[in-house]
Amino acid sequence: MTGARGPESTVVEVSTRDGSYDVVVRTGAIAEIPRLVTERLSCERFAIISDDHVAPIHGRAVMDACSDAGLDTSLFTFPAGESSKTRKSWSILTDELLEAGFGRDSCVIAVGGGVTTDLAGFVAATYLRGVPVVQVPTSYLAMIDASVGGKTGVDVRTGKNLVGAFHPPRLVLADPGVLTTLPLAERAQGLVEAFKHGAILDAAYFDSLGDGVADLMAADTDVAGPAVARSVELKAKVVSEDEFEGGYRQILNFGHTLGHAIEAASGYALGHGSAVAIGMLLETRLGERLGVTEAGTHERLEIALEALLGPLDQVSFDASAAVGYLRTDKKVRKGKPRVVLLRSLGEVDPGDGWSHEVSEAVLAEALGAGSGVAG
Amino acid sequence: MTGARGPESTVVEVSTRDGSYDVVVRTGAIAEIPRLVTERLSCERFAIISDDHVAPIHGRAVMDACSDAGLDTSLFTFPAGESSKTRKSWSILTDELLEAGFGRDSCVIAVGGGVTTDLAGFVAATYLRGVPVVQVPTSYLAMIDASVGGKTGVDVRTGKNLVGAFHPPRLVLADPGVLTTLPLAERAQGLVEAFKHGAILDAAYFDSLGDGVADLMAADTDVAGPAVARSVELKAKVVSEDEFEGGYRQILNFGHTLGHAIEAASGYALGHGSAVAIGMLLETRLGERLGVTEAGTHERLEIALEALLGPLDQVSFDASAAVGYLRTDKKVRKGKPRVVLLRSLGEVDPGDGWSHEVSEAVLAEALGAGSGVAG
Repeated sequence: MTGARGPESTVVEVSTRDGSYDVVVRTGAIAEIPRLVTERLSCERFAIISDDHVAPIHGRAVMDACSDAGLDTSLFTFPAGESSKTRKSWSILTDELLEAGFGRDSCVIAVGGGVTTDLAGFVAATYLRGVPVVQVPTSYLAMIDASVGGKTGVDVRTGKNLVGAFHPPRLVLADPGVLTTLPLAERAQGLVEAFKHGAILDAAYFDSLGDGVADLMAADTDVAGPAVARSVELKAKVVSEDEFEGGYRQILNFGHTLGHAIEAASGYALGHGSAVAIGMLLETRLGERLGVTEAGTHERLEIALEALLGPLDQVSFDASAAVGYLRTDKKVRKGKPRVVLLRSLGEVDPGDGWSHEVSEAVLAEALGAGSGVAG
Repeated sequence: MTGARGPESTVVEVSTRDGSYDVVVRTGAIAEIPRLVTERLSCERFAIISDDHVAPIHGRAVMDACSDAGLDTSLFTFPAGESSKTRKSWSILTDELLEAGFGRDSCVIAVGGGVTTDLAGFVAATYLRGVPVVQVPTSYLAMIDASVGGKTGVDVRTGKNLVGAFHPPRLVLADPGVLTTLPLAERAQGLVEAFKHGAILDAAYFDSLGDGVADLMAADTDVAGPAVARSVELKAKVVSEDEFEGGYRQILNFGHTLGHAIEAASGYALGHGSAVAIGMLLETRLGERLGVTEAGTHERLEIALEALLGPLDQVSFDASAAVGYLRTDKKVRKGKPRVVLLRSLGEVDPGDGWSHEVSEAVLAEALGAGSGVAG
């Protein structure tokens, strides 16, 4: 991973087993897609995949830019929302591309939030056993998290992201200028992952996010651009070291062992960001109790996350249901749940392979302590 | 790729971007699965996937061998037949494994023919974004072709194998001793791929197969073992040079451009082997007509393949339907169909990236000439 940052543009190179790809963070870059793509890929046809909220705005903009540049481009849409991140939507999109005759020399361009980048990425990963994908994230979550690292996939009844593939993009193009179209609630939910990057890797960045919450929520590109770029740099550094989550990459799961369980127990009524925020707080309180995490870390996290999301100790969830979901978590190893614990703000405790085995009973207690109404 | 052959055992090492894996060809090796697997993999749980014809015989044998060795093993079955090679079967098997709580430290063991190795391989490729798969092929086709090279996938309405992933196995264990349980028709169909290996890479091997047809059909391990081993060596050499079918690997598609189209046009009533055999003959006649293939090659192919399959010029198919299927073939590049042509028996013409662009009109003529009743 190497980075190059200009006054308005950051290009982060992410290493994979198949070479590397660039993440370009630049306001206004959506208009430059045809050049950025054709510099890197020799595809004959382009399939833009976008949900029906984003397609009329940014999907159409990418489509027009590509068509104006003489590229053979088609737009495929699916209904917006996490409920579309399914094997069924994946099947429908795949069949539509097949019926339109897209061959191996095609490229998928995903334009949208995390649902779109994950779903379209999985279409590309499995289409004729794999065609290139260009990720054009249009939400904070997708820019900061979903589009970097090559994870693609869909949700199933048993849980989220349990079916999928590692399929690194050939290019990621994050244009912070599009964030003003993002609903406010989604801005806050997505920014949680930026705070997570700060919490595990860079305390100064964590503090700067806390100071900039109002500007970040306003999607002021002068503040949002550098934040997206910094999160991309941090995430790229991690996934370049450990592409397949064998070890170090697990640190990105901070807050996610309990967060995913809480999110699932809420029937996904609770936003992913809020669930992860609560997960980070509960895992940090647990870490302090176990003597792994520096005392006072929980409080610093809580102040920053509540500035973003409002009071989090009021959020209710079914703790016993959450405990049940822990068992199907991908982070289970040898049947035992594992948790990433901070050593201090900005630093993860190495533990046993970057996470700690914690008994279900201890996690149940940690979850129960997280809510006044928990069962 | 390196090979080591003893009197009764061949181990072929196949290189992939993620390291390498062994293909062990040895009569009686099924009983040694626990040792061979645990020498190479540190998995906590094993999910055997097998169809309901093979499961009671070889699936159960693998299951018992693993259980006796103290491995935590479960057996999952699906209805036998190509009609099970679908996204639906893949979904059902995936859900069954998830519900049984298989985590990332699990391993899939596919026991069966090509449908099973492809389907179970795709389950493994996409389960929690990928878990290891051990391939235990029980048919000629699966031993010779399907289980080497990492191709996994399912069929869709538009065509066969159009959805899938490259997911190299961690070990392939081919035990020619199990071939006696294979129906005779399937033996003949599978052996076509062995003749293909000879036709593209090794004329002496091709001739030896022709001489040994009776013993191969009887599944005499003294003849079947070396043939499986030689085919595995040849295929491994090709896929080690070109894992993702960017160039050289295309030579394995000899007979398949027209063969797949003929198979699809028959509504899959025609066996894959027969369709590929006819495809090889038609592509070779085309090659001779174009001056690419040495004159007389078609005749040598025809004598050998008809000794295996009976008269092939009596087989009828709808040529105009076959032309339609050519358009959705994965081998289409820049919208134009491509065909692998021999230079002579045992050698492929390099063409333009190991295949030739041939117009639809010329292919339609080649297909029409292939059958007295073709439309």
